[in-house]
Amino acid sequence: MKAIVYTGPNTVALFERPKPTIQDPTDAVVRLLHASICGTDLHILKGDVPNIKPGRVLGHEGVGIVEELGSAVHSVQIGDRVLISCMTSCGACRFCQKGIASHCETGGWVLGNHADGTQAEYVRVPHATLSLHSLPEAISSHDALAVSDAFPTGLECGVLSANVQPGGSVVIVGAGPVGMAALLTARLYTPSLIVMVDLDHGRLTTARKLGAHATVDSSAPDAQQQLMGLTDGLGFDSVIEAVGIPATFQLCQEIIGVGGRIANVGVHGTKVDLHLERLWDRNISIHMSLVNATTTPRLLRLVESGALDAGSLVTHHFPCDEANRAFETFQAASQHQALKVAIDF
Amino acid sequence: MKAIVYTGPNTVALFERPKPTIQDPTDAVVRLLHASICGTDLHILKGDVPNIKPGRVLGHEGVGIVEELGSAVHSVQIGDRVLISCMTSCGACRFCQKGIASHCETGGWVLGNHADGTQAEYVRVPHATLSLHSLPEAISSHDALAVSDAFPTGLECGVLSANVQPGGSVVIVGAGPVGMAALLTARLYTPSLIVMVDLDHGRLTTARKLGAHATVDSSAPDAQQQLMGLTDGLGFDSVIEAVGIPATFQLCQEIIGVGGRIANVGVHGTKVDLHLERLWDRNISIHMSLVNATTTPRLLRLVESGALDAGSLVTHHFPCDEANRAFETFQAASQHQALKVAIDF
Repeated sequence: MKAIVYTGPNTVALFERPKPTIQDPTDAVVRLLHASICGTDLHILKGDVPNIKPGRVLGHEGVGIVEELGSAVHSVQIGDRVLISCMTSCGACRFCQKGIASHCETGGWVLGNHADGTQAEYVRVPHATLSLHSLPEAISSHDALAVSDAFPTGLECGVLSANVQPGGSVVIVGAGPVGMAALLTARLYTPSLIVMVDLDHGRLTTARKLGAHATVDSSAPDAQQQLMGLTDGLGFDSVIEAVGIPATFQLCQEIIGVGGRIANVGVHGTKVDLHLERLWDRNISIHMSLVNATTTPRLLRLVESGALDAGSLVTHHFPCDEANRAFETFQAASQHQALKVAIDF
Repeated sequence: MKAIVYTGPNTVALFERPKPTIQDPTDAVVRLLHASICGTDLHILKGDVPNIKPGRVLGHEGVGIVEELGSAVHSVQIGDRVLISCMTSCGACRFCQKGIASHCETGGWVLGNHADGTQAEYVRVPHATLSLHSLPEAISSHDALAVSDAFPTGLECGVLSANVQPGGSVVIVGAGPVGMAALLTARLYTPSLIVMVDLDHGRLTTARKLGAHATVDSSAPDAQQQLMGLTDGLGFDSVIEAVGIPATFQLCQEIIGVGGRIANVGVHGTKVDLHLERLWDRNISIHMSLVNATTTPRLLRLVESGALDAGSLVTHHFPCDEANRAFETFQAASQHQALKVAIDF
C-alpha cells in the first residue's frame, strides 16, 4: 500500500508499505478514503515530538471503509464507512472511566505517533469500538473529515473548557482550523459576542463569514484596547487560546473579565508567564486539555442535521501521490488561504 | 474610641478616634467584642497595599454587638451579636448577581482598606444586610471569629475551587490559618487523602491533630517525591496553594494529577512561571479567586452543629491596649505557635 512517511526533519515521502493486519481482537483495519493534515503533523516535521522517529506513517485524522475487524469489535461492520477519531481509548481504564480518554492507559494519541497513522491506503485502528464512528449517508466523507480532531478539540478544549454561555462574550485568539472549529461550535451556545483574533486578514475574513461578530488584527498596536472596547472595558467571559505561544497566552490574560475562563487549546513548546500578581483576585480559571473526543457522536449528529457546517473547514484536497504538495500547502496556509488540507486515497 | 491605626511601614499604634456614625441607610455601626489580624494586614504593614495610607484603622474581621442601624437594614436588630464579614457587598450589582460579591461595584474588600476597619471599639459597616450575620447563642464569639475571613476563604478559594470530592486526594501547600481552614473544610467532603505541606514542624503537628492524613516538610530535598509517592505516582486530584510565592506555585504544578485542579489561595506579589509546555495536555485547571464570603451562612450552621471546630484556629487573644504585642505575635507566628491572633475590646 501507499503510505506517507516521516523521513526526518521537515520531510515526508510516499513509500510502499505492507498492508496492516489485525493484531488484537479489539483492532480494525480501515481502508482510507481521505486523511487530513493536522498542525501537530507540522510539529512532528519540525522535530518537536522527539519520540516519533523517521519511518513512522503520519496522520491521526481520516475517513474510510472498514476492511477487517477483530473478534471483539461489534460497534461497526465490515464495509461501514467510518470516521476515525484522533483519540484511541479503551473505555475501561481509570482515565477513560473519568472521561479523560486522552490519557487512556493503553491509548491516547496513538495513530501517527506510537503506531502508524491514517495517511496511508490502510490503517490499523486499535480499540476500534471507541475509535471508529459509522457515518450516516447524509454526512459526506469530505464533511466528516474535520470531526476526527479539529471539531472535538475546538468544542471540548475550547468552548466547553471556556464555559461559553448564551448571552456571554467569547474571544478566540487564533483563526486556524481549531480556532475556526471553536468559532463554529461556540455559535451552538448562542453567545452574544464572538470575536476572532489573528494576524492573517484572509482568515479574519473567513471568520466573519463563519459567524464571528467582530475580528481584531493582533498585530495592531491597539489590539488589546480594541478588544477591551468590544466588552465595554469589562473583558471577556470566555477566552480561547488557539495558537500556543507566550505572546498569545499573555494577550488572553490581559482581556479576561472578572469571573471568566481562559481555555488553552494551543500546543505550547515553552513555559509562559502567569501574572498571578494581577490575576489572583480576579476569580478566573485557566483550563488546559488534550481532546478526549467524547463529543464526537454529538458533533456527528449536528453535522447530520445541518446545524454544523463541518465541511467548511476543509479547503484543499490532494491525491496521495501529491503528499508533498499537500504538506507544502498546509505549511504555507496563509498564502493558499488553506484551513484543513485533505489527502485522498 | 480606641482604634488600631496603620502609622506607616511596619508600625501600628493605638489612637483615640471619634466613634463612627451611620452615613447611609444601608450602614450599621457595630461595637466590637473581638477583632482578628489577617495575613493581609501584614501585607499592608509591609507597604504591599499602596492605596492604604497611614491613618487608616486596620481590620476586616470581627465579632461585635449592633449599636446603630441605618433605616434600610432589617436583617439584624440593634443589640444582636453579629459576625462581620470580610467582604462588603450590595447584592444588586452585576458582580453580586453573578455570585462574585468580592467584586461588588460598591463593595469588595472595604473594611480596613477603603474605609476604617474592625480593629477598633466601633466600626461602621456598609451594606450591612449582607455583611453582618447574627450569631446564635450556641456559637461563642471566640469560635465565630475565624468565620469572618479564614473559613470562607479556605472553603471557597481552596476547597470548592479545587473541587475536593469524597474519595479524592487533596494536598494543601501552606499550613497557615487559611491553609488550616482549607484542611478543616476539605474534611467536610470526606476525601480519602489530605496532605499538608509546610516548613514549620509545629504547624504540621497541628495539621495532623486537625485531621491531615500525612504531612510533608517542603524543605526536604525529596519533598516532591514524597508527595508523588503518597498518590502512587499519579499526582493529586486537588491541589490548594495557600502561600503565594513562586516556589510553592511551582510545587503545585509538579504534583497535580491528570484531570486535577489547582486552587490558588495565596496572595502573590510577582508573576510566576506556568509550565504550559508540560501541562497543556494534562487536562487540568487552575482557579484563582478572592473570597466572596457567600458560604458564611453555611459555615455558621456547621459551627453551630459542631461539625466544624472553627475556634481551633484562634490561638491567641490580646487586649486592645496590647495591639503591638498582638501584631508581633502574628508576625512571629511560628515562634509563638500562633494561627489566628485576636484583639479583644
